[in-house]
Amino acid sequence: MKRLHDMINQEGIVLSDQVLKVDAFLNHQVDPTLMWEIAYEFMDRFQDAGITRILTIEAGGIAPAMMTALRLGVPMVYARKTKSVTLNEGTISAEVFSFTKQQTSTITVAEKYLQPGERVLIIDDFLANGEAAFGLARLVEQAGAEVAGFGIVIEKSFQPGRQKLIEAGFRVESLARVESLKDGRATFVDSVTV
Amino acid sequence: MKRLHDMINQEGIVLSDQVLKVDAFLNHQVDPTLMWEIAYEFMDRFQDAGITRILTIEAGGIAPAMMTALRLGVPMVYARKTKSVTLNEGTISAEVFSFTKQQTSTITVAEKYLQPGERVLIIDDFLANGEAAFGLARLVEQAGAEVAGFGIVIEKSFQPGRQKLIEAGFRVESLARVESLKDGRATFVDSVTV
Repeated sequence: MKRLHDMINQEGIVLSDQVLKVDAFLNHQVDPTLMWEIAYEFMDRFQDAGITRILTIEAGGIAPAMMTALRLGVPMVYARKTKSVTLNEGTISAEVFSFTKQQTSTITVAEKYLQPGERVLIIDDFLANGEAAFGLARLVEQAGAEVAGFGIVIEKSFQPGRQKLIEAGFRVESLARVESLKDGRATFVDSVTV
Repeated sequence: MKRLHDMINQEGIVLSDQVLKVDAFLNHQVDPTLMWEIAYEFMDRFQDAGITRILTIEAGGIAPAMMTALRLGVPMVYARKTKSVTLNEGTISAEVFSFTKQQTSTITVAEKYLQPGERVLIIDDFLANGEAAFGLARLVEQAGAEVAGFGIVIEKSFQPGRQKLIEAGFRVESLARVESLKDGRATFVDSVTV
């Protein structure tokens, strides 16, 4: 997705060869027209996939997931990372290990918002090692629903998440596939040189 | 806002005379068309207020803030409740006391996403005691920007947040003003009986 590539190059900050900071437009400040275009791309790729619901995780996934839900005309639910006072019964949980924080946390969704038989599109802002992605997939599977695919805004293709998801049989659609963050610059897989 | 009142009555769960659970459509499962209508209401009320930016706080505020940002054509930024690995310099913080959790937390925004002179619309899913609202206002004021108003999805009018904000000179626009949660039912301020 060209505009997303451009935004990453112009507004993204490469903090190291592992870390790309995109808080200028994706996960702190959020560019609403970019989110709307991202949602169009996800709609275009998944409109024949029979999606009945979008699942994401707070907080970075909410903006793109919300817009995609509006485009596809389906409800969105976001898994919680912390226990809520009002989310106290009938829940489904999964453990997620964070390499960044080097700790395991529990993600939770109310079971009534993931029904058996649903076809769920999982949206997230980043895909790196795939820990959050597999955690979300486990929530869907515990609910007796089906993962129709993953819609990822930015994939760090040099980390193993995508490959692991593909090997597990999942469909993965990433709008920007970052091949490398070396020399302070993001380069992309499959970029067409014009 | 009639559809919001109807959703609260049909899908909301009154857990006590203080707690209204709206995770069916607002802050866990999210109804995208409702968010889009909520954004229309906020746009309608604030379109002449010279808004240059929307500020909210993760996670419940993100969906309505995102949609309103798209309607108004301005960037949105969400304050973080936890320290981010990549949010590490040039930040503005405020302390927020949570009555629900009985603890104080720090909310943070990168100063480059709140510029001096901006007119900021603060959006949040709930207004109760006003602690989060005043915390967000302090972020704006520390940045040298101006709070143009508060856009609240659900106000618990029997708690003091609104009154305190009004007394401090702020404009408050709430789309549902819950007068009472007694007897297991939400009733609204200013409801027109048809």
